[in-house]
Amino acid sequence: MRLARPLERLIDELSKLPGIGPKSAQRLALHLIRQPEEEAMALARAIVSAVREVYPCPECGNLTDVTPCAICQDEQRDSALLCVVEASSDILPIERTGYQGRYYVLNRSFDVFRDRQLDEGSLQSFTARLETGVVKEVILALNPTVDGDIMGRYLLSLAAPYPEIRVSRLAHGLPVGGDIEFADEITLRRALEGRREF
Amino acid sequence: MRLARPLERLIDELSKLPGIGPKSAQRLALHLIRQPEEEAMALARAIVSAVREVYPCPECGNLTDVTPCAICQDEQRDSALLCVVEASSDILPIERTGYQGRYYVLNRSFDVFRDRQLDEGSLQSFTARLETGVVKEVILALNPTVDGDIMGRYLLSLAAPYPEIRVSRLAHGLPVGGDIEFADEITLRRALEGRREF
Repeated sequence: MRLARPLERLIDELSKLPGIGPKSAQRLALHLIRQPEEEAMALARAIVSAVREVYPCPECGNLTDVTPCAICQDEQRDSALLCVVEASSDILPIERTGYQGRYYVLNRSFDVFRDRQLDEGSLQSFTARLETGVVKEVILALNPTVDGDIMGRYLLSLAAPYPEIRVSRLAHGLPVGGDIEFADEITLRRALEGRREF
Repeated sequence: MRLARPLERLIDELSKLPGIGPKSAQRLALHLIRQPEEEAMALARAIVSAVREVYPCPECGNLTDVTPCAICQDEQRDSALLCVVEASSDILPIERTGYQGRYYVLNRSFDVFRDRQLDEGSLQSFTARLETGVVKEVILALNPTVDGDIMGRYLLSLAAPYPEIRVSRLAHGLPVGGDIEFADEITLRRALEGRREF
């Protein structure tokens, strides 16, 4: 016995999503079929319009449906601060801290196993941003991994011709509420190195 | 700062799915936007066609895109055996056991907190099935819960006018590979009651 073909196809498509195994895909597909047709159609429509209407902001790379994006449009923001993130999804948590500067979204990360070297071409808009003379500090908010480090060093080299621009990176250390007992050795070493006057 | 509106809408729709929290919904939405447009459209299309083309088989209630469903069409099957399940998704695991009888899918379960009583109307096709005289045994494969028990008792009462039809239920007991130490008291009591010659 096999499932109805359109149901099988839906389970198939759902199980391509990250973190959705075959069992969850089946559960989701049956849920979509059982609920009122309008609900499932709303999801299908939302997928189509998100895919068609959302694109990276030509100025900063943030995902947007207007040009320039809401953040680039916001004149209250401090253009002297440029926070570099790997993906649009990294912007939300930084926004929640109350950060009021600008962003530059790489929309890619460096992968030691995939990338032989970083091609300069894709980062031309970053260099162009530094050339304007408006930026006083580049804050690297890259993931604390080997790949993030390599990307960071590369961006640092791109900023080298502009000695008036400070390049900083997020502090490493114990997460607030974290337990020293369970901290890994590298985090703890970084926390020691970065210790501050109490 | 807010996300692009079509992206927000997609996250919203995705987080309505069972087991998908706001964080997973965001991750899934960004994944859908980042991959080639064709992939996301394939999912949208699969949802639309599953919702439009799949319906409960008028004979047995199994989800199907043909009438009658593949199982009802299969003339090799033993029509004397009628296995009653709550949902189409319960058919697959039973099929894997090699079961070769027919099915009757309730497409609903009894919920003590919601249903005052079971309305006979929705089960007319079940009674009709018994009336044909073909069915020799009804196998209740309902979930081993209070609600499943109530539903089972109700189905038993519907079968009462046909004394030639045997009504059985799945055996309760220790799951194969299960550990007595961790078995709950009710399962263990059922396993004792249902003990067999070794």
